[in-house]
Amino acid sequence: MKHTLIEKVFGNKVGKEVKPGDIITVDVDWCMIDDIMAPFCIQKFEEMGFTKVWDPDKVVLIYDHFLPATQVDDTRHFHLADEFAERFGLKNVHRTEGICHQLMTEAGYVKPGDIAFGTDSHTVTYGCVGAFSTGIGYTEMAGILGTGKLWVKVPESVKVVIDGTLPKGVTSKDVILRIIGDLTASGATYQSLEFSGSTIDEMSVAARMTMSNMAVEAGAKCGIFAPDEKTAAYCNVPYDERLKALRADEGATYAKELHYNAEDFVPVMACPSLVDNIKPVRDIKGTKVDQVFIGSCTNGRLEDLHAAAEVLKGKKKAPYLRLIITPASRKIYKEALDDGTLEILSNAGAVITTPGCGLCCGRGGGILADDEVVVATNNRNFLGRMGSSKVKIYLASPVMAAKAAIAGEIVE
Amino acid sequence: MKHTLIEKVFGNKVGKEVKPGDIITVDVDWCMIDDIMAPFCIQKFEEMGFTKVWDPDKVVLIYDHFLPATQVDDTRHFHLADEFAERFGLKNVHRTEGICHQLMTEAGYVKPGDIAFGTDSHTVTYGCVGAFSTGIGYTEMAGILGTGKLWVKVPESVKVVIDGTLPKGVTSKDVILRIIGDLTASGATYQSLEFSGSTIDEMSVAARMTMSNMAVEAGAKCGIFAPDEKTAAYCNVPYDERLKALRADEGATYAKELHYNAEDFVPVMACPSLVDNIKPVRDIKGTKVDQVFIGSCTNGRLEDLHAAAEVLKGKKKAPYLRLIITPASRKIYKEALDDGTLEILSNAGAVITTPGCGLCCGRGGGILADDEVVVATNNRNFLGRMGSSKVKIYLASPVMAAKAAIAGEIVE
Repeated sequence: MKHTLIEKVFGNKVGKEVKPGDIITVDVDWCMIDDIMAPFCIQKFEEMGFTKVWDPDKVVLIYDHFLPATQVDDTRHFHLADEFAERFGLKNVHRTEGICHQLMTEAGYVKPGDIAFGTDSHTVTYGCVGAFSTGIGYTEMAGILGTGKLWVKVPESVKVVIDGTLPKGVTSKDVILRIIGDLTASGATYQSLEFSGSTIDEMSVAARMTMSNMAVEAGAKCGIFAPDEKTAAYCNVPYDERLKALRADEGATYAKELHYNAEDFVPVMACPSLVDNIKPVRDIKGTKVDQVFIGSCTNGRLEDLHAAAEVLKGKKKAPYLRLIITPASRKIYKEALDDGTLEILSNAGAVITTPGCGLCCGRGGGILADDEVVVATNNRNFLGRMGSSKVKIYLASPVMAAKAAIAGEIVE
Repeated sequence: MKHTLIEKVFGNKVGKEVKPGDIITVDVDWCMIDDIMAPFCIQKFEEMGFTKVWDPDKVVLIYDHFLPATQVDDTRHFHLADEFAERFGLKNVHRTEGICHQLMTEAGYVKPGDIAFGTDSHTVTYGCVGAFSTGIGYTEMAGILGTGKLWVKVPESVKVVIDGTLPKGVTSKDVILRIIGDLTASGATYQSLEFSGSTIDEMSVAARMTMSNMAVEAGAKCGIFAPDEKTAAYCNVPYDERLKALRADEGATYAKELHYNAEDFVPVMACPSLVDNIKPVRDIKGTKVDQVFIGSCTNGRLEDLHAAAEVLKGKKKAPYLRLIITPASRKIYKEALDDGTLEILSNAGAVITTPGCGLCCGRGGGILADDEVVVATNNRNFLGRMGSSKVKIYLASPVMAAKAAIAGEIVE
């Protein structure tokens, strides 16, 4: 029997062949709990009567949404989670290290072939290293904390093949936005988006991460890339036979296939206020912009900051525009500090915030007012996402965002 | 007739001798309007029927309290102020440059002998360069915008003389806290605190700024230092006869005199929840701390960050503690970035925020929850100032704050 990549990941884990629609119970390699959801997970865990955490070393607590806190009593979440960690011997607690979805691979937790669950929908991000990962609710997470297991329905797969070389100025963000536009926001519901092709092969893990991060925006259960040598280097594991075998078989069965020529991609944005309302930048240029946001778990990596800095170097943001930049992690912050990137960005007039989720999730760090327009590199443009419910969010690549910051309007 | 320093400043301005209690009308050299108060000033200005700003070049708009915004519609204030600036030709608009009280001297506006008003109580800060400056309400500010004038009652003066050398680890913050403790929070109401002595002579302008900044915490109308060569260098003006004459006459009349030996000062903190509840650090050591805040217009200058970095270099903050650092301006941020200070602080586990007022005024950037304890370098520890009304705020120097960050408790 021929298998897709996700079927292989699950098959390896349960030690038998699986097919789409199978309900399987998996041993969980990693679970990630963020600061917003920690108190609810803990409460459910206690209600379920568990007296110990199945494996404290497989639980990762990350404080990111509320850092630095902007609402009275936000920091209570830290105290509740700290107390839980203390009580059950959890060692993997990141209190100021960055955004959860960046840290789960960057800090060495999730590896190719792993199965990970997290209390946030963008947990899909770890598909960038060939892992299965997805977001779950706090009740399910409480069950995992007690048992180390969760049931999963093996998803169908959608094969997305991209071949060729992307035009200059076109990034993996433009690619995933276009794919979401083509699939629609519900077009891949409960499916596995499996990305391959020579364009993907050429991409850095960071660029792939942008794509896996947004897989959920098409409704997908996961967005996954076969691990290659770059993945192995990023994850600090050998590129051995096991890793090489983590790829779809020729002739595996897909629910759907999408084929793209890289040369056909153009810079695009997801326009207000649906993530699948994708338009070429050339069709929306001239739109006045109040704020530009570069960062988040979608596009806050060093290469994203480099891309922005390349555009912004020696230039100034438009006078009235607010330019806010949020590296995805403390490590990235430090790298960007060391190599002069933060200085370039600061000189261009950027406000550089501490790594965290604040602005993307509308909790702080630069939220907007009625009728304001923001060009943002994060992953959602729903009404109310980054401030008032009348904010207009255009999702874009760091390159397009940086260009808009200088012009004060959307430009090609 | 012999005059105090503040009498000289006013006398020079109105061209005649003045004495305490005189009501005089002064031509305003500078007015500073912050983002919180801008809309109210504008509305009053319009209600008063003014059709032009008396001198657009003497008005400075600074966006700092709401940067980056943490509440829906905060950024409306920027739009209203931008529109006003555009309409009346205001050029001095700082949208992301830092905290108002830092910028008013750092960016070259207020000079020795000037008269400045601002829409924030800590406008007293500019006394550090021998200017009269104080906070006013938005109605008075609207009047200034239209007329360029304001009436003032010439204040009595309190002479504060400090001679000798401060012990190692004791800073100007410890000095001003002790003085406020001795005076009480209302002990210098509507008076001018005039600082002098060999200890003051040795201080940098930055250190003096910490003291003038907090003069209002004793109720003072201003806190003023005679300009010296350091002041001239900081303000980029010649140290000429005019500057040399800006000092109190021998034999001037004071409402009160306080004399201190620098050697008698010890590290102190203002304890919850009154700014004059001053205790030596040795009497409160062992108090558990949830968060440390180093920054603000009181202690967010480069020498403050250096002092913190000296303590924190190669060390780590206590695991559960949140360490938040806010440089007072973009210039300071950049200097601290260039000289490696931010790296030291970041490596110690600090969250470095963008320059602004958020945490100090309880709008964001790390506000606290019920019953949490914070050691903070800012200027007010009123209930509700930095989060919930049950937060316990200990005001301290950057040195003592940094030590607490490592220990997780107040230490000497």
